[in-house]
Amino acid sequence: MNVVSAAPFYSSYPLMTDYLKSGLHKWAGDAYKFNKEEPYIELVTSPNNPDGFTRQDVVKGDKGILIHDLAYYWPQYTPILSPADYDVMLFTVSKSTGHAGSRIGWAVVKDREIAKKMTTFIEINTIGVSKESQIRAAKILQAVSDGCSHPNRKEAETNFFDYSYKLMAGRWKRIREAVNKTALFSLPSFPQETCSFSGRTFGQLPAFAWLKCEGEIDDCESFLRRHKVITRSGKHFGASMKYVRVSMLSRESEFKLLTERLPAIKT
Amino acid sequence: MNVVSAAPFYSSYPLMTDYLKSGLHKWAGDAYKFNKEEPYIELVTSPNNPDGFTRQDVVKGDKGILIHDLAYYWPQYTPILSPADYDVMLFTVSKSTGHAGSRIGWAVVKDREIAKKMTTFIEINTIGVSKESQIRAAKILQAVSDGCSHPNRKEAETNFFDYSYKLMAGRWKRIREAVNKTALFSLPSFPQETCSFSGRTFGQLPAFAWLKCEGEIDDCESFLRRHKVITRSGKHFGASMKYVRVSMLSRESEFKLLTERLPAIKT
Repeated sequence: MNVVSAAPFYSSYPLMTDYLKSGLHKWAGDAYKFNKEEPYIELVTSPNNPDGFTRQDVVKGDKGILIHDLAYYWPQYTPILSPADYDVMLFTVSKSTGHAGSRIGWAVVKDREIAKKMTTFIEINTIGVSKESQIRAAKILQAVSDGCSHPNRKEAETNFFDYSYKLMAGRWKRIREAVNKTALFSLPSFPQETCSFSGRTFGQLPAFAWLKCEGEIDDCESFLRRHKVITRSGKHFGASMKYVRVSMLSRESEFKLLTERLPAIKT
Repeated sequence: MNVVSAAPFYSSYPLMTDYLKSGLHKWAGDAYKFNKEEPYIELVTSPNNPDGFTRQDVVKGDKGILIHDLAYYWPQYTPILSPADYDVMLFTVSKSTGHAGSRIGWAVVKDREIAKKMTTFIEINTIGVSKESQIRAAKILQAVSDGCSHPNRKEAETNFFDYSYKLMAGRWKRIREAVNKTALFSLPSFPQETCSFSGRTFGQLPAFAWLKCEGEIDDCESFLRRHKVITRSGKHFGASMKYVRVSMLSRESEFKLLTERLPAIKT
């Protein structure tokens, strides 16, 4: 079985596929280039990492199984256009509330037999998930859920997603203002869409900024490093070195420095 | 690569080997029966589950890699005859202190390259181990270690292994007394050996009692179940149905019932 993704450089996909030299499946790379008449699994990351755009499956085949990685499909990052309704959907506590260290996620799966196999995989792979992590994740998800289901709309505005949305919207406003002060950089534009969860109309507010160096700067990562800004080059994501991925989730003191340094840079 | 074990029915071994249909290795079953001229990995469980005896590798080959599973190699279960000194040794917090739910263990490995590969495997398989589990395991191991390193020998007698040894020795004394009151059952005899850790001379005190039904009773598990004692049949471990595995780690109230019910059973 071929495993492909339109985000072929999203590091964990080929690693996960290759590491045990499975006799069942192999990593087949970029979904855009896959044109074999063979069964395949396509991993769809939406919103995408690193650029934050929503994605659809891209392979033009009829022998495919789709797995949707919805790690960033939360209303602080992206307008929720409709309830997610795919065959196999992966979620994690890593990206929504930032508890990546707990190593825990969940899946929503339509086919009962596939769900059973996934459960068996987890049982055998680790004989179950850490009880400490399960207890912490259950507590976190309960707190988030309780905050959202509050019947009083006024109070509900202090729920986790509202709080996080405001934080992300504020940071994106600040980084766009910083980038607009200089001709050296640009950021992607996202379409305004209405979120069915919050009722707000906004464009994507990704966890990473996909920053482009304009003009003569060919190696954006090295250029920024010389100006004391550490980022991750586009080359690690199968893109041009004119792009870098910048974390939007750093601590406030770091993020403030970023918004001060970017507009001050001269070539 | 063939993977074998003299404990071929120890359920997690074939499961772990088979579950991903690896192209690198396959489960080849009972180590006693393995006689191919091919490379192999032998898993050596010592002390053994279910019977508690110490074990050595058994394959008569020179193309083997040995992995020693030392989950029960702790001085409350078995006399420690010498420091463990094998190529690849696996340990766990599951069996010594009973924190199986934390899903955490460690390995001591002589070859640096093998150790690196094992580290990479853990990193890719789960992108690291749950931080909550790591914190709890570190705390537990520190507490156990602190108790053992106390310079005052008198106080040191209250350390974790002394406490657990006394508990296990007390339970084994009680179950042997219970079994000696009836001709229906028997238990394995273990040689007396001197533990280099505690200085005590004793026979194995396994976490499971490997109980045999004597005489006419062919299905020991069903027989005991009729007398309100739940055990696990020897058939699950590749042994005769005249044997059952009985937990020695149940709660005190349950263990007391066990020692009362066994001698009261009549055919």
